[in-house]
Amino acid sequence: MKINIKDVAKEANVSMTTVSRVINNNYPVKSETRKRVEKAIKKLNFSPNILARSLVNQNTKTIGVVTPSINNLFFPTVIKGIEGILRKNEYSIYLCDTDDKPEEEIDYIKSLLGRQVDGIISIDPKTENMDNGFYEDISKSIPLVCVNGYNEGVNCNFVLNDEASGAEQAMKYLIDLGHTDIIFIRGEKSYSYDLKEAVYKKVLKENKLLKNKKIINIGEGNSNDTVENTMDIIFKRLEKIKDKSPIAFFTCNDLMALGVMNACKKANFNVPEDISIIGFDNILVSSLVEPKLTTVDQNMYALGENAANRILHIIRNDDKELTKIILDTKLVIRGSCSKVNV
Amino acid sequence: MKINIKDVAKEANVSMTTVSRVINNNYPVKSETRKRVEKAIKKLNFSPNILARSLVNQNTKTIGVVTPSINNLFFPTVIKGIEGILRKNEYSIYLCDTDDKPEEEIDYIKSLLGRQVDGIISIDPKTENMDNGFYEDISKSIPLVCVNGYNEGVNCNFVLNDEASGAEQAMKYLIDLGHTDIIFIRGEKSYSYDLKEAVYKKVLKENKLLKNKKIINIGEGNSNDTVENTMDIIFKRLEKIKDKSPIAFFTCNDLMALGVMNACKKANFNVPEDISIIGFDNILVSSLVEPKLTTVDQNMYALGENAANRILHIIRNDDKELTKIILDTKLVIRGSCSKVNV
Repeated sequence: MKINIKDVAKEANVSMTTVSRVINNNYPVKSETRKRVEKAIKKLNFSPNILARSLVNQNTKTIGVVTPSINNLFFPTVIKGIEGILRKNEYSIYLCDTDDKPEEEIDYIKSLLGRQVDGIISIDPKTENMDNGFYEDISKSIPLVCVNGYNEGVNCNFVLNDEASGAEQAMKYLIDLGHTDIIFIRGEKSYSYDLKEAVYKKVLKENKLLKNKKIINIGEGNSNDTVENTMDIIFKRLEKIKDKSPIAFFTCNDLMALGVMNACKKANFNVPEDISIIGFDNILVSSLVEPKLTTVDQNMYALGENAANRILHIIRNDDKELTKIILDTKLVIRGSCSKVNV
Repeated sequence: MKINIKDVAKEANVSMTTVSRVINNNYPVKSETRKRVEKAIKKLNFSPNILARSLVNQNTKTIGVVTPSINNLFFPTVIKGIEGILRKNEYSIYLCDTDDKPEEEIDYIKSLLGRQVDGIISIDPKTENMDNGFYEDISKSIPLVCVNGYNEGVNCNFVLNDEASGAEQAMKYLIDLGHTDIIFIRGEKSYSYDLKEAVYKKVLKENKLLKNKKIINIGEGNSNDTVENTMDIIFKRLEKIKDKSPIAFFTCNDLMALGVMNACKKANFNVPEDISIIGFDNILVSSLVEPKLTTVDQNMYALGENAANRILHIIRNDDKELTKIILDTKLVIRGSCSKVNV
């Protein structure tokens, strides 16, 4: 079914050697013959076998991209950033969706090794696979770049956002608006959630508000169900509130923030008049809802681009030095927070 | 850098033949030896070279997935559906994002042939590549399944939604609500837009409303800019409207519908009181906005699953018969349309 060099030779009425010479451009071929071969290649939609070449060249021009979920609004943009750079450099992507499961992450990465990829980019690698040494091991056997998921003491290449700075900007913004009752929303185990929680506590402490600390863990934090799950959990809490003293939510990502926003609507709280909400990530949807969400921009596209450029650099230069590239984050002030009236 | 069978043999202190026997499970190996080899495989994170096997078996266990854009809300869900099925069957995905460009689509598919993929799934293939015979040619040389992008007279495998039925349900719903001024929003060239436009005209004609026909082409219809572009175009139109007689919009996808919704907000029209809006696709965001969008559900996940199952069937059975799988569509009534008061 697949077209091979033999079919092209037959179509052009030349030898396989001649076809090979035209493709590899390594021996002179008569202009008329070359044209005939090119015509046959075009007619048959023939492409030279990159696979066979790979075994000879010891590279596959393929990068494995591992992601917790292809259909949330954060990861596809990171992947788009990766893809744009890799395509320009004639690399292809093996897409691996782990469904946010640590064991799938391991299985997928092992299968990528078997497929002889030239490198692996892992988006939001699971904390437990960082902790148990899996990523450090992998990093020794193949070029690897992790996007986010930074874990102190783990020797890997990372491309990160300065999430701590973003979280601090968000918290300070709420404090400056006069909020003293700030609820922190996070998901299950992840370095990123831990880091934001640490900043949350730090800023509360600095402002003598630690007694008001409220942390809600909504479970699985990065799927399409996150919005609905967060809504359900927060709605139950809001229902019980009798007085409408101002409260604020600082959430670990925009999906959680949208969940809180929907819970507010359902419980008849106005955003931002009664309740202020700050998200994190600046996914597309955050600017499509009303009020538009105040959030921390993560430069998702730039994360992907930086990861792709870094892996190409490692592959091409056999660079063994491990680096941590940290991108700036910035609070994007829109309409979901308001000043507390005293 | 990469671990090979030799490293495993050394680690386990056995011959390469023994390692090979353990991996392929084709000759008896002493239990104690097997355990030692398995331990070494685990320790070194070794995976058998699928690449080398591929050349022998003449298959790569790889499917190319071609999409106009990885970071909108429709395509990632289709891909997730594809990925779930392929993963279970131990196939990997080559991800190809064409940036909605017909020439990139051709380049990518040719490169997939060169990479010896076992099959190709093309999501929303470009109409011009259907018209110019490209897809029909490709279909002859490799198992190919197109998701949407159906084109009459083109011999390919298709997995489709019954978009005509969905469009008709949407139009009839608006007519039943009493709307006579229905504006149709579409993007540039695409079979799907043409098909919905035909239904739009048909239903108008059946209801003697053809004189009210208004079609707005907002250009590129399937990127993240679609919302903003649609908003700009529709806002300019709404600004000029002096009286607030009820109008309705039927849009070719939810991104356009969100754009219309934002334009309404900006121009101080209330949805659904002043203006009714129906989208198409039922992407996640459609249920995250307020009011929630009435739209036509496309079963995006099921489209992907069906495409994946179909391509596996074709590959495994060398099935040359071309099929058209048509999935049901259903109007999802939410909050963005209202009855016209007479």
